[in-house]
Amino acid sequence: MKVFQLLLLLVVTLTPITIGAPNRTPPLSPINRSLKRHTNVSATVSNDFKTYFYNQTLDHFNFNPESYATFQQRYIINSKWWGGASKNAPILAYLGAEGPIDDDVTILGFLTEHAPRFKALVVYLEHRFYGESNPVGLKGGPQSIEAIEESVKNKTIRGYFNSAQALADYAELLLHIKNKLHAHNSPIIVIGGSYGGMLASWFRLKYPHIALGALASSAPILYFDNLTPQDGYYSIVTKDFEEASENCYKTIKQSWNEIDRVASMPNGLAILSLKFKTCSAAQYNAPPRYPTTQICQAIDAASNATDIILDRVFAGVLAHTAKRPCYNMTQAVTQTSIGWQWQVCSEMVIPIGVTSNVSMFPSSPYDEKEYDDGCDKMFGVMPRPHWATTYYGGQNIRMILSKFGSNIIFSNGLRDPYSSGGVLEDISDTILAVKTTNGSHCLDILKSKETDPEWLVNQRKEEVKIIGRWFRKYYHNLRLLKQ
Amino acid sequence: MKVFQLLLLLVVTLTPITIGAPNRTPPLSPINRSLKRHTNVSATVSNDFKTYFYNQTLDHFNFNPESYATFQQRYIINSKWWGGASKNAPILAYLGAEGPIDDDVTILGFLTEHAPRFKALVVYLEHRFYGESNPVGLKGGPQSIEAIEESVKNKTIRGYFNSAQALADYAELLLHIKNKLHAHNSPIIVIGGSYGGMLASWFRLKYPHIALGALASSAPILYFDNLTPQDGYYSIVTKDFEEASENCYKTIKQSWNEIDRVASMPNGLAILSLKFKTCSAAQYNAPPRYPTTQICQAIDAASNATDIILDRVFAGVLAHTAKRPCYNMTQAVTQTSIGWQWQVCSEMVIPIGVTSNVSMFPSSPYDEKEYDDGCDKMFGVMPRPHWATTYYGGQNIRMILSKFGSNIIFSNGLRDPYSSGGVLEDISDTILAVKTTNGSHCLDILKSKETDPEWLVNQRKEEVKIIGRWFRKYYHNLRLLKQ
Repeated sequence: MKVFQLLLLLVVTLTPITIGAPNRTPPLSPINRSLKRHTNVSATVSNDFKTYFYNQTLDHFNFNPESYATFQQRYIINSKWWGGASKNAPILAYLGAEGPIDDDVTILGFLTEHAPRFKALVVYLEHRFYGESNPVGLKGGPQSIEAIEESVKNKTIRGYFNSAQALADYAELLLHIKNKLHAHNSPIIVIGGSYGGMLASWFRLKYPHIALGALASSAPILYFDNLTPQDGYYSIVTKDFEEASENCYKTIKQSWNEIDRVASMPNGLAILSLKFKTCSAAQYNAPPRYPTTQICQAIDAASNATDIILDRVFAGVLAHTAKRPCYNMTQAVTQTSIGWQWQVCSEMVIPIGVTSNVSMFPSSPYDEKEYDDGCDKMFGVMPRPHWATTYYGGQNIRMILSKFGSNIIFSNGLRDPYSSGGVLEDISDTILAVKTTNGSHCLDILKSKETDPEWLVNQRKEEVKIIGRWFRKYYHNLRLLKQ
Repeated sequence: MKVFQLLLLLVVTLTPITIGAPNRTPPLSPINRSLKRHTNVSATVSNDFKTYFYNQTLDHFNFNPESYATFQQRYIINSKWWGGASKNAPILAYLGAEGPIDDDVTILGFLTEHAPRFKALVVYLEHRFYGESNPVGLKGGPQSIEAIEESVKNKTIRGYFNSAQALADYAELLLHIKNKLHAHNSPIIVIGGSYGGMLASWFRLKYPHIALGALASSAPILYFDNLTPQDGYYSIVTKDFEEASENCYKTIKQSWNEIDRVASMPNGLAILSLKFKTCSAAQYNAPPRYPTTQICQAIDAASNATDIILDRVFAGVLAHTAKRPCYNMTQAVTQTSIGWQWQVCSEMVIPIGVTSNVSMFPSSPYDEKEYDDGCDKMFGVMPRPHWATTYYGGQNIRMILSKFGSNIIFSNGLRDPYSSGGVLEDISDTILAVKTTNGSHCLDILKSKETDPEWLVNQRKEEVKIIGRWFRKYYHNLRLLKQ
């Protein structure tokens, strides 16, 4: 594995996944942003979406006058279906994650598709430091990487780039929106996917007075501080491939030795992305095309044509990138890749590794020192691996939350490697796990399609049913309160 | 009132209560620290109490390398009664408030008196910036005011002097203590009084994975952001005096006009402390002597001897300070007075005022601008009056918490003026209000005495019974988990 790791260092600033230790963490995007980055986002958004900016507190937890600095936080509102403040009609609020909010507005379906039924206001809140919500200002457009690159280097402001501050932003901003609309009694459901799903569940736990409930899609809130075995992620990738095709799984498993051998050849680097491709295929293994199956079909087909293992896996990698005229070995540098890098180097320390030979990946245990050194080198910062569990918990979650907290849906697709760190069993009558055997990352909150299989349609129905129950109880209690 | 207010400004740096707008907030100490400050604290603490220091994170919510600064946080452990880690024996943790922890160790009774029954470890955690837990270091001893004076002026560090950071300290430190003792499954009950009581209830709400439950004594968590009418505090002071003696109440009520007239006389300043004395008497109106009654008895006695109203109220003021050879008009400058000043000027904005003629106090409505100007003048800082309700909630508390959260006791004595901002009704089966008609500020957690009336003995019994129930459920669930 030494040559492999050496080469990883070469691409350290290029890709969010195949790089040095802290970068091993696969990206947590609710959507596969790398596939979407050439889309002209604004063109696909209707006029019903209005963009606003809020003068947000930069540091919620410091009361030096200097800390009263603010930045412009972007949020987008669609009031087309809203029943209005006079009816206390609800608010569906999407909590932005590690990327510009524009992508989410176009790609998500959950809020806009179910708003009419609930007569809900739809709100999208952008996460600080991404998109147009960067404290250093907007440089080169919302998808540009200039501002985020500058801000993770800026020692004065990057410290405020963390989840607790982001949650406090959402708290302040949601109260601001309610005040502005005089919607003091409108219940809010917060919705998020992946890292944003973690934020949604944490928001309900930390700010129950602001959010009535949370839909946390594909939120690996237990993938911190050894709560989940480090092998969780790659075990599921392996299982996904094994289920797609036994031959495919074996071919990939055998390929790593070959890769070691050719890694010094000119095209060696390209091969390294095999790991990324397999993970990405498993994580975003969505119907109707199922990339895992696509890769395996290509590998299996190639198995009949060639004895050379690398030719076979190449066939698979190419199948997953078929639409590009030529194969580009480096992943795009995006706001997500840069910003998330900072986040995993500070507090979002998700220890993913491969310790056993059970998976199809070569052994590569999580190495805390290597991780720390990588972060030290990159940012001059030491990660706080215990902070997430100190602030948010996770230990004995069922015992802790069975009599504390309420109204959270943890939704997962069990083919998503991150589901290994998710909440997969009901915790109480109102903290519920809604899972699908064949689902992938954040599938339930994406736009629905004609081709959606029944299990996916049903998962969404179930979620809507639960949220409807929360609303009914809320309005019942509100009536009692007003009497 | 103009002369009165003018004179208030003169004593602006001297007393924590009779000064300009932000200082109007009466002190929230669980104990009347001003009465205790001459006690030789260390002499009264047995050898069972061991003092430790923890290398605490200065800023939990900032990930700049610079923010990785630490300070020494003091904590005191008494393991005399502890059943040990092997038995998962519980921990009673006192969350320090706005003063050095030494006072609490000597004056509180709740933890040490009930530890034997629960076989509990007793822990006292000092609040950051007070006592020996000041980031600028220990200067002149734990009761000295040098360090705290320096730190509220220090623009680099005073910003970290707030409740959210203090709660995060307690989270980190309690986990550290559990790790050190291998007491991973020992349940923790957090206990606090007044501001510390607010911290205890907030800690249970924000860190349910660390504290199993909270005893929040005399915690006015609803005295923020207009959740409680500003008259709440002085209305109860008035009621207390009215109940003690109708004549006494009238005398005080009539005295304010007289005070206006003599305020420019040499002894005018002394008279101003009448307001402080009456509030302090009402807040700490504890058996067996009941200062409110003492004051009123003196006023009533003087009413027979003199027609001059000011002579009568003087008699009352003197009765409450009888033990001092001569009457000192200024309140002592303590760590509490200085530190709390900073806290009320940043986030602990408790709007107390007098708007009506119903109370025995002259009209003096809460004036946000005056409050802000006072803080601006004193620290160059603008208060954030909405932050406490944004971060901790409070609005519709019964509706919000009836299906969220558990295991909190809100204890109050209804003669305590701060009980007007307390939780006085049960919210759910496990979020309970334990109140006494005749109780005063934090009475239940102070050392028990032979002379304690039955209602006080019963209040404590009730609290112990509830905590016992929490423990039994916890151990039951723990056994299920281990099976």
